[in-house]
Amino acid sequence: MPVLVMKFGGTSVANLDRIRRAAKRVGVEVAKGYDVIVIVSAMSGETNKLVGYVDETSPLYDAREYDAIVSSGENVTAGLMALTLQEMDVPARSWQGWQVPLKTTSAHSQARIEEIPTDNLNAKFGEGMRVAVVAGFQGISDEGRIATLGRGGSDTTAVAFAAAFGAERCDIYTDVDGVYTTDPRICAKARKLDKIAFEEMLELASLGAKVLQTRSVELAMRYKVKLRVLSSFEEQSDEAGTLVCDEEEIMESNVVAGVAYSRDEAKMTLLSVADRPGIASIIFGCLSDAGVNVDMIVQNISEDGRTDMTYSLPTDQVKRAETALDELKTSGGLNFAELVIDEDVSKVSVVGIGMRSQSGVAAKMFKVLSDEGVNIKVITTSEIKISVLIDRKYMELAVQSLHDAFELEKVG
Amino acid sequence: MPVLVMKFGGTSVANLDRIRRAAKRVGVEVAKGYDVIVIVSAMSGETNKLVGYVDETSPLYDAREYDAIVSSGENVTAGLMALTLQEMDVPARSWQGWQVPLKTTSAHSQARIEEIPTDNLNAKFGEGMRVAVVAGFQGISDEGRIATLGRGGSDTTAVAFAAAFGAERCDIYTDVDGVYTTDPRICAKARKLDKIAFEEMLELASLGAKVLQTRSVELAMRYKVKLRVLSSFEEQSDEAGTLVCDEEEIMESNVVAGVAYSRDEAKMTLLSVADRPGIASIIFGCLSDAGVNVDMIVQNISEDGRTDMTYSLPTDQVKRAETALDELKTSGGLNFAELVIDEDVSKVSVVGIGMRSQSGVAAKMFKVLSDEGVNIKVITTSEIKISVLIDRKYMELAVQSLHDAFELEKVG
Repeated sequence: MPVLVMKFGGTSVANLDRIRRAAKRVGVEVAKGYDVIVIVSAMSGETNKLVGYVDETSPLYDAREYDAIVSSGENVTAGLMALTLQEMDVPARSWQGWQVPLKTTSAHSQARIEEIPTDNLNAKFGEGMRVAVVAGFQGISDEGRIATLGRGGSDTTAVAFAAAFGAERCDIYTDVDGVYTTDPRICAKARKLDKIAFEEMLELASLGAKVLQTRSVELAMRYKVKLRVLSSFEEQSDEAGTLVCDEEEIMESNVVAGVAYSRDEAKMTLLSVADRPGIASIIFGCLSDAGVNVDMIVQNISEDGRTDMTYSLPTDQVKRAETALDELKTSGGLNFAELVIDEDVSKVSVVGIGMRSQSGVAAKMFKVLSDEGVNIKVITTSEIKISVLIDRKYMELAVQSLHDAFELEKVG
Repeated sequence: MPVLVMKFGGTSVANLDRIRRAAKRVGVEVAKGYDVIVIVSAMSGETNKLVGYVDETSPLYDAREYDAIVSSGENVTAGLMALTLQEMDVPARSWQGWQVPLKTTSAHSQARIEEIPTDNLNAKFGEGMRVAVVAGFQGISDEGRIATLGRGGSDTTAVAFAAAFGAERCDIYTDVDGVYTTDPRICAKARKLDKIAFEEMLELASLGAKVLQTRSVELAMRYKVKLRVLSSFEEQSDEAGTLVCDEEEIMESNVVAGVAYSRDEAKMTLLSVADRPGIASIIFGCLSDAGVNVDMIVQNISEDGRTDMTYSLPTDQVKRAETALDELKTSGGLNFAELVIDEDVSKVSVVGIGMRSQSGVAAKMFKVLSDEGVNIKVITTSEIKISVLIDRKYMELAVQSLHDAFELEKVG
């Protein structure tokens, strides 16, 4: 029988009523003839509670114990979902990560999936089981210990199962009804997309449209897993939600698919650093070692052999970055005149695979912002994305103006 | 190094402070030179919460899913205890049942321990680990699924580990400071016993003195594991609590060691069943298949080839028993006139190995109850125990009167 993977996030299984509602959705797909693999998250709030216990017990915790503790939330949901399905007369059973076994690396708390053998589950499907409910976000390492994939790892689990079992589709049930052209809380005209290309979704996800975990989209793209995002709180048809798929499957689309933003960005500028080969590697190597996720980077034109180096990063990493660079300066590893920090910036991006074949998108974007009096501080571009750093107070205005200008409220 | 097993129940690990307190006790034993195996229960309230989820989801649940869900509470505590010990610089790690692996039968929710291989833990002890924190109450079946030992199974886990590893002693930390002649909440004169024989403890435990699970005492008796019950809420010396041991180790004792009770009992009477060979086997086979734990059984004198059959059971199993018998009647498997149910009875028992050599204990017990106007509904006796079923409203009175009459407040 064809296999379907369905993933339910924390808010979709937040209590027993919601688990029942999710189980009904699963029942609909079983009735259509699918063997279903259901991936579940912990009931919302549970993981945070467990993480809180760990943090209070041991600030610099043993990640192996962290994983053993935190993974228990998913196990509870998996069992409850299996029981709920059984009550509906759907043959189902739960699987914890180590039972599948979903094999991972030993990088506890951020393990990567190495292998998902299909024989155990397929044997049970062969015996009449119609639904395998799998605890998301966890697997087992070579040493036989529980390893988690990091927060949001349940999406990745779902896509990995879909790839391993050759699933027809991987449906991600969440608390939004799909992927929008931008955040509807900021722009009332935001429109739900019926389809979006993997590449676009990747840019939107990593830029702050928190619908899907980036890794899960990467994985789906690599293994050509059709991914559908839809709401677990509405009655659903086969065409509901947003399908994330190969760009070949999208007949026509707007040049720009969406406008993304990231509110809490900071901009750091190192004034007057030596402009010589290897200097960027020193600076960004130091920041990387300190665990700072640098995003946009701009280097000014050199003058008298010295230059300014500007980059953006999440505001909550500013302190860490500052400390690392100060230490580097003190130790003589780097010479600079001053470190200028601007913690009041946001990033706004337009994303679309149509930009590959159509020019003028950047120019139009800059004009729209200029017309609104928004000063652009940093620009970066890729094949399918243009991002700008602007003062945070203009963020909403910028998103709305760009949405209007590219007419994203209209179907392409 | 000598091995010590220490078990901490739910109230002893109810929150992070209590886990720290328990970890300190473990640290004291490690400092004395023991390799310690710590068995932990779920934080108090957690198991009930999970059981509540299961009951609400599926009244006649799949016990395999129940086990997968309910066992997660112990896993959380095990991880937190390991982290707490690590914070105290005690080398420790957690083990879930399947990691040991503690091998059980497939009788889910009431599995029995089949084997505890010692090689995994001993290898880690050999590498310098000083404490293995084991999630209690759970193991893994032949089919690779999690199986729990039933409520209170953490005591059994502790004793089984003590037997498997040849531990010097098995200390059960709980919220009482030892075993009493009766429940101090009911009888103010109740006295803590320094020592009690396995057999006596067995009768007290199975009759409702909820200090130790019956199976754990049986297991300790079989493998001669010295069992100590003591409080996790007091500073402890080596002589604290109550030692449960072979009767040879107890120099002298009262004829009656204690008065036990079980509050929530029910009495069922099948009126007018055929008095023929095999009828008891049909009735109690049916109840056993339905998972009903029948306790006391009385069969009336036969009249016209028909008789009445009376038995006691826990009140929460009444519904199940009723359903099973009704179905049996409907299917023609059993003929009876009526099923009379009395859900307002309690059981009171006097227990003591001294009863083996001294007569008149039963007569004295019945006289005491008669003097207080308590009507006895059912009586059963064993070598070291006499039990009666009485109206629940007389339960406290009966316990107090018997404690007085046998002078249990005095050291024997």
